[in-house]
Amino acid sequence: MSDIRPDETRLAFEPAEADDARLVFVGRVRSPWTTRADCPKNLRAAREAGVGARVEIDEAFRPALASLEVGSWIFLLSWLHMARRDLAMQMPRHAERPTSTFALRSPVRPNPIGLHLVRLLAVEQDGAVLAIDAIDLLDGTPIIDIKPYFASVDSPPEA
Amino acid sequence: MSDIRPDETRLAFEPAEADDARLVFVGRVRSPWTTRADCPKNLRAAREAGVGARVEIDEAFRPALASLEVGSWIFLLSWLHMARRDLAMQMPRHAERPTSTFALRSPVRPNPIGLHLVRLLAVEQDGAVLAIDAIDLLDGTPIIDIKPYFASVDSPPEA
Repeated sequence: MSDIRPDETRLAFEPAEADDARLVFVGRVRSPWTTRADCPKNLRAAREAGVGARVEIDEAFRPALASLEVGSWIFLLSWLHMARRDLAMQMPRHAERPTSTFALRSPVRPNPIGLHLVRLLAVEQDGAVLAIDAIDLLDGTPIIDIKPYFASVDSPPEA
Repeated sequence: MSDIRPDETRLAFEPAEADDARLVFVGRVRSPWTTRADCPKNLRAAREAGVGARVEIDEAFRPALASLEVGSWIFLLSWLHMARRDLAMQMPRHAERPTSTFALRSPVRPNPIGLHLVRLLAVEQDGAVLAIDAIDLLDGTPIIDIKPYFASVDSPPEA
């Protein structure tokens, strides 16, 4: 079991031992980020870095991309395969106080799924590769879903 | 294998047979919707129905909720356990033409994960239950993640 920082707490259950449902990886991110120290901590920081990224889609899933519109905004859902899953309270570096997992966007969560709103810049190599404007993911991170962004349901209605 | 409609196509691979990663269910939705015919097709329609919903969080995961702010917007990630996973092109009812899975918000997708931006109205029963403004999910649907919404990364930067 991994160590925890002062003020962090563990869940009473190890999520990695569960088998409530199973995922298929549909592709992988190709990004400039190969170490956690390099990787931007969120998409705003990734955009400020000014470098794009790509998503390689496995052959079996390429037919599911056909109707995506270049220039549109899409959600990528990632599987943050390097993250532990057992923390209830976390003390992010530079944070002032411990914060509970579901109030953070930290990769550490019971199901380490990342949510990333990115712009689709191009579809390359006969639909095998998506070029996107930026990503806050390590090179090689698995992708588990792609969804179109709709402002009508994906932004607070009062905004 | 389930039937498909005219103009729909199957993936060359059955995602339900994969085991690339495993999920834990952290809770379940309690909604007024018990049949697919009743269930609103998206959150805008759910809000128009004018009825709230609840999420029951399993005991082991309640400590991960502590820092959520009542009144804030949160993403719920659901596991759409009733959905098939094997379609590449889909012909939604009332749609004019077949559309590829990753360009739709249909529950039918290789990993049937739903993304729902809702408002947290209250935390009830000592942190066991979240009251939310609306939901477009059948009663009993498993929840796999909760994330805070941040406009800085969750809306297109040009908006």
